[in-house]
Amino acid sequence: MKQLTLDDIEALAVGAWILGTGGGGSPYHALLNLRRLYADGERVSLMDPDDLRDDDLVAVVSVMGAPLVILERTVDSRLIARAVTAMEEHLKRKFKAVMAVEIGGGNGMQSLLAAAHLKIPVVDADAMGRAYPEAQMTSFAVGDLVPFPLTSIDPRGNEVVVGRTSSWKWMERVSRKVCTEFGSIAATCKAPRTGAEVKKWGIPRTTTKAINLGYAVTEARRRHADPIEAILQAESGVRLFTGKVVEVERRTTEGFLRGRTVIDGLGDDRGGRIEIDFQNEWVVVWRDGRPVVSTPDLICVLDTESGEAIGTETIRYGQRTTLIALPASEVFLSPRGLEHVGPRAFGYDIDFKSVFCS
Amino acid sequence: MKQLTLDDIEALAVGAWILGTGGGGSPYHALLNLRRLYADGERVSLMDPDDLRDDDLVAVVSVMGAPLVILERTVDSRLIARAVTAMEEHLKRKFKAVMAVEIGGGNGMQSLLAAAHLKIPVVDADAMGRAYPEAQMTSFAVGDLVPFPLTSIDPRGNEVVVGRTSSWKWMERVSRKVCTEFGSIAATCKAPRTGAEVKKWGIPRTTTKAINLGYAVTEARRRHADPIEAILQAESGVRLFTGKVVEVERRTTEGFLRGRTVIDGLGDDRGGRIEIDFQNEWVVVWRDGRPVVSTPDLICVLDTESGEAIGTETIRYGQRTTLIALPASEVFLSPRGLEHVGPRAFGYDIDFKSVFCS
Repeated sequence: MKQLTLDDIEALAVGAWILGTGGGGSPYHALLNLRRLYADGERVSLMDPDDLRDDDLVAVVSVMGAPLVILERTVDSRLIARAVTAMEEHLKRKFKAVMAVEIGGGNGMQSLLAAAHLKIPVVDADAMGRAYPEAQMTSFAVGDLVPFPLTSIDPRGNEVVVGRTSSWKWMERVSRKVCTEFGSIAATCKAPRTGAEVKKWGIPRTTTKAINLGYAVTEARRRHADPIEAILQAESGVRLFTGKVVEVERRTTEGFLRGRTVIDGLGDDRGGRIEIDFQNEWVVVWRDGRPVVSTPDLICVLDTESGEAIGTETIRYGQRTTLIALPASEVFLSPRGLEHVGPRAFGYDIDFKSVFCS
Repeated sequence: MKQLTLDDIEALAVGAWILGTGGGGSPYHALLNLRRLYADGERVSLMDPDDLRDDDLVAVVSVMGAPLVILERTVDSRLIARAVTAMEEHLKRKFKAVMAVEIGGGNGMQSLLAAAHLKIPVVDADAMGRAYPEAQMTSFAVGDLVPFPLTSIDPRGNEVVVGRTSSWKWMERVSRKVCTEFGSIAATCKAPRTGAEVKKWGIPRTTTKAINLGYAVTEARRRHADPIEAILQAESGVRLFTGKVVEVERRTTEGFLRGRTVIDGLGDDRGGRIEIDFQNEWVVVWRDGRPVVSTPDLICVLDTESGEAIGTETIRYGQRTTLIALPASEVFLSPRGLEHVGPRAFGYDIDFKSVFCS
């Protein structure tokens, strides 16, 4: 068990945003919340998954919805804690710790907010190693763990328990409709996990990974080195394209933020053009009608100068951006993993070909 | 406590369908279910609300959704019982009895199905005295009782608990979205009621009323008398129009069956024409652009020969129909009652004027 410093949390905000692959929601509000909680004397401890006992119960949290709405409607941090206590009331059991369903974006920090309010530790793990838009796009779903129950909470005082679903897809359908009716934003506590399940199916040490990634970026900036180079080194990534954003289409629909952006090449890429489709997260990058990179490879669009991640809800005309890819967690590269998160899972009739396998 | 005979249940199917004012779902499937359960030796007992102790807990059930879907997709009677046991699991308390949220249509019989499976009595009461389409259109809502929790169950094994809502309208919104995602049909157990609440805010003895109404109709048919006259006498109703259906528009949308029908006059009404708007139930009858009768007055469209009720999901071109109105339960005639179920509650900018007050 290690107490996180405020520096760790500042670094986490930077790293989680990169791992968010455009989604997971901007970490900014969560960071402000955590600065305030730390100023009030609260502290969050990080727990290695191996320190969980098999029968410990872990709460798996996220803010669900469309990133654009999450940016506009600040979520009180007590709401994510309420999602957890509502689940405790449903189960009549207490949680030992809390973890993020996705380390990417603001959702990589919501677990810290819940933990600060509930005075329990955060497990150093998640179920995506990044961010994905849908409930069945987790390592737990790939592991065929039980998809229910889920609690969904909105700031008006509405609370729903999805007590049972016949599949992960049905959990996604039902919980998404509830979220949409709440205004495309809801604080959720997903299906509780035992320590044994987290150790077997969780993606370990992704909080630490995001913190280290954040430190690598800020350290590079401090040294006036290239922050993007630092990211590529830290995560064994590849640089794919550099250019200027010339088009953005975005619509908040069915509880998601969907759309596409077009980037015209600059420098070595001058004359080239890429298009990126998104559903909360960047999903497929196209060049001349052919896919360049797709999920589950991590598609990250970064500010070319600062290396800061750019979200699907904030990308805008004129931004100078660099597209990079980072490798996905292994659990998603199996045939079964690809069924959950490969391009076909997003409705694209293309095979996954990782940029990391040539 | 009185054991219902199969004759009582056959009569209930006839009477509840009339009180359904076009909605509540056809009672036919529930009747078939109950015939089978009675053939298997099951029996249902009817309990007077005054026999409830103040702290008894009563389950309030209905099949929620669009009547057209309810007609097409048979609901296993065990599903409505499951809605009740799911609520018991949520509350960690057992129910003493079950009651219908609405006596109208098939929902006037779903409580009997739940009771037969659960071996508990049915309370002789409901919360509408008819059928209405929305959650906040009940005497319990008029009485400002707590709107939550609600369980919503679908045949695939999906189960949702709406644990808390900030208002009755929010209960309607959230539970309707869940129901819509389930395919516009769900077995539901509404907010549990104490015996004291049922005695104060329930509409008493509506099961008996529906049974007696059914007997009046079948007795008139047996005597070759006019069944519609028998209904008007039994319920102090008024005959408003007789004619032939010449138009039906109907769409299943947002979890409801909405539309309108046009009826051209026959006999004394020859040359006249009325239009009836519906949202699951008949809502407003228009003649020459002016409202003739509206909710909460009970608007019943009956087969002119047999006196059988016609549902919004089954009305069709060419039917010979008689429009009658029956008086509403008093609780809905107060200003507060009309806020919940008057024409404005359905989006019509007209004042309620009962056909029973000239």
